[in-house]
Amino acid sequence: MTAPDYGQAFALWRQAAGNDWPAYTQHAFVERLKDGTLPEDRFLYYLKQDYVFLIHFSRAWALAAAKADSLEEMQAASATVHALVHEEMPLHVEICAGHGIDRATLEATPEAPGNLAYTRFVLEAGYSGDFLDLMAALAPCVLGYGEIGARLAGNTGPYKAWCDTYGGADYQGLCFDVGRLIDAALARRLGPDWAQLPRATSLAHTFHTATRLEVGFWDMALGARA
Amino acid sequence: MTAPDYGQAFALWRQAAGNDWPAYTQHAFVERLKDGTLPEDRFLYYLKQDYVFLIHFSRAWALAAAKADSLEEMQAASATVHALVHEEMPLHVEICAGHGIDRATLEATPEAPGNLAYTRFVLEAGYSGDFLDLMAALAPCVLGYGEIGARLAGNTGPYKAWCDTYGGADYQGLCFDVGRLIDAALARRLGPDWAQLPRATSLAHTFHTATRLEVGFWDMALGARA
Amino acid sequence: MTAPDYGQAFALWRQAAGNDWPAYTQHAFVERLKDGTLPEDRFLYYLKQDYVFLIHFSRAWALAAAKADSLEEMQAASATVHALVHEEMPLHVEICAGHGIDRATLEATPEAPGNLAYTRFVLEAGYSGDFLDLMAALAPCVLGYGEIGARLAGNTGPYKAWCDTYGGADYQGLCFDVGRLIDAALARRLGPDWAQLPRATSLAHTFHTATRLEVGFWDMALGARA
Amino acid sequence: MTAPDYGQAFALWRQAAGNDWPAYTQHAFVERLKDGTLPEDRFLYYLKQDYVFLIHFSRAWALAAAKADSLEEMQAASATVHALVHEEMPLHVEICAGHGIDRATLEATPEAPGNLAYTRFVLEAGYSGDFLDLMAALAPCVLGYGEIGARLAGNTGPYKAWCDTYGGADYQGLCFDVGRLIDAALARRLGPDWAQLPRATSLAHTFHTATRLEVGFWDMALGARA
Repeated sequence: MTAPDYGQAFALWRQAAGNDWPAYTQHAFVERLKDGTLPEDRFLYYLKQDYVFLIHFSRAWALAAAKADSLEEMQAASATVHALVHEEMPLHVEICAGHGIDRATLEATPEAPGNLAYTRFVLEAGYSGDFLDLMAALAPCVLGYGEIGARLAGNTGPYKAWCDTYGGADYQGLCFDVGRLIDAALARRLGPDWAQLPRATSLAHTFHTATRLEVGFWDMALGARA
Repeated sequence: MTAPDYGQAFALWRQAAGNDWPAYTQHAFVERLKDGTLPEDRFLYYLKQDYVFLIHFSRAWALAAAKADSLEEMQAASATVHALVHEEMPLHVEICAGHGIDRATLEATPEAPGNLAYTRFVLEAGYSGDFLDLMAALAPCVLGYGEIGARLAGNTGPYKAWCDTYGGADYQGLCFDVGRLIDAALARRLGPDWAQLPRATSLAHTFHTATRLEVGFWDMALGARA
Repeated sequence: MTAPDYGQAFALWRQAAGNDWPAYTQHAFVERLKDGTLPEDRFLYYLKQDYVFLIHFSRAWALAAAKADSLEEMQAASATVHALVHEEMPLHVEICAGHGIDRATLEATPEAPGNLAYTRFVLEAGYSGDFLDLMAALAPCVLGYGEIGARLAGNTGPYKAWCDTYGGADYQGLCFDVGRLIDAALARRLGPDWAQLPRATSLAHTFHTATRLEVGFWDMALGARA
Repeated sequence: MTAPDYGQAFALWRQAAGNDWPAYTQHAFVERLKDGTLPEDRFLYYLKQDYVFLIHFSRAWALAAAKADSLEEMQAASATVHALVHEEMPLHVEICAGHGIDRATLEATPEAPGNLAYTRFVLEAGYSGDFLDLMAALAPCVLGYGEIGARLAGNTGPYKAWCDTYGGADYQGLCFDVGRLIDAALARRLGPDWAQLPRATSLAHTFHTATRLEVGFWDMALGARA
């Protein structure tokens, strides 16, 4: 199937990630969400780890706002942070409550190594590099979930709600916005031919490493490893 | 006159800043805003520098969200960033337009040394230190404007609008919130007797240095130096 | 067996890490180094990952120098960086050459997830926190290798050279120095009773998480997981 | 007079700084060092501020080592840190002692705003940006002193020792090394035509702002402002 058109950088980076991209977006965890065979306890485990993930993901977008160099970039990044911590996280708490996981349990979740690996990689790429490095590290999560959601949209199994969330118009709209933000940020700093520069290779490498760590996140969620 | 009660840390840090605190909050620039004798060109100069200031101030609050270690701290910091970049900055652009300064002029404002000094000190204190260091560096601006606003509230001269903004219930409410955020962050990390620790001295020193740089900002705004 | 006396913080943090501490310092990888049963290909794999590790470890110590707040702390951190990049890394390159791994191969080593997880956790703890957070994240590596080395000193099997390095006087001296640096940094900022503060709990948590990631590093080195 | 040939980036950035470059390198403070008319108390004031400056300058080079992305860059940055904190700072302490300023006095020096402004700008540029941003912010200091030193070499007045230090072979060699480090870092990331990219403009802007803050440093040293 063709990937959603989230922009030029996404198309290039996705291709440069090679087989690791489908290893992530078509991971067994995803396929079992799709066909409904994912055991509920693995889904609940995932929800708890995802709560911890969202905290660090929000911190990474906050760092993006700190590292932005135009008002537009700041507004885009801060709107994302705001949506995450004032809407998505309370919603996540509510969904978990619907599955019998209360907030205290969520907050006491021990962070699994596969979770630590991805979130700290993203944050560190952002701290050590600039806005572009941070975007390349964040992109596999934001846009990969978008690609998965686009494929699973309309799913009717036990994980319909999850599929609806990421396949829905709101999340897909966010992905197109983030894709445009990244393309504009690249052109603004590196010019229209940025893809020819050595910098493009290092950004693609960051995207690729983050993709590998997303595979590890699904492995962890599926219980294939801690 | 007594200072507003923005909490324990503010009271201690304000006192430790000695004469530099009134040198800032009762600076000639402030007194001339109050008695209406501030030349309009100095006010316009201030508005332009303040636009650049707000960009870096927003970045500093975004960094605070990245450095927070509880959901409550993240929500408080991200709400402030959001208010700054989605409300305060557009409002600032509008106010400047009312004074004949268009957005292109604002964005082309060369950042004065006194402006660079304060904003970079705050951001660097945050990057090199932790959430508490960042709060101590941000506090003189947030809470100092609160104290000035509380004193100038009800002013009827040419700078009534400015006085109303910082003396008004919204801004004063923000100051009480930020004061509580700081006190809670200190107690959360350092316990109830934090004021006895060596760390308290270094935080007070950061607050004091930031206060001295606020004096420099007013000097610059008044034209006493670049 | 008793642990080496690398200072107060080490003793407290080590204990707070519970069973994860021996899971790291008495990991099967270590025991096989000791009894000589570690397959050579796993040792060579470890050497290659360790090269990448040392780069990020050096970066973390450089960040410590940037975050120091006294000349003594800067000198200690910068001496460590200098030893790492001007002595230890060239030595590592030489040792690898002795095992038939040339420098180009070393530099092309794909960084394994278990390696990424630990190094990025350390660097991010340092960027988001202050000097103390960075020390708590670095300590399990520096001092854990010290404890392992002290236990394996005098080993005569195929991994004698490795045991001699970490069990030798130079490395043991470094561990005592780092232990003193950490204790002094804690007392300097938090006073003599720092262990009673909430901050002590969060630092112990950072040390514990880093210890868990060291277990993951050995797992990876042993081939138990990528 | 022609500038020393410290490389391509220096030549471009120096030119882009316009009149602010000679305002810095031919500042009255420098001219009075040259003709020997600088009052000794201003020189002693400068020495004390320079001690505080060197601490933050060393921290900035340590940050560069943390942000490097090759072993060569790390080695260059860490060698500079090491020379600064283990040689230059002890030497500075000794020189000050020769002028009757003891170490306790040096360490108690209140950091002047013009000093804060420059050092925090450099560090913040490094934290918010990447290795290149940090180099562009550091370059005016390293290479500007080199250009001044080259011009004042052979001076025989009361400030002969200062002129000999910066005009001497060691310091001039460092400048050529740093110039090469910067050119190589640019080419490595942005390719041979980096000067055509928008990024080049923002780097030149960072260099220019840092140059303006160096003018402010001399103003402060001369007593023209705090």
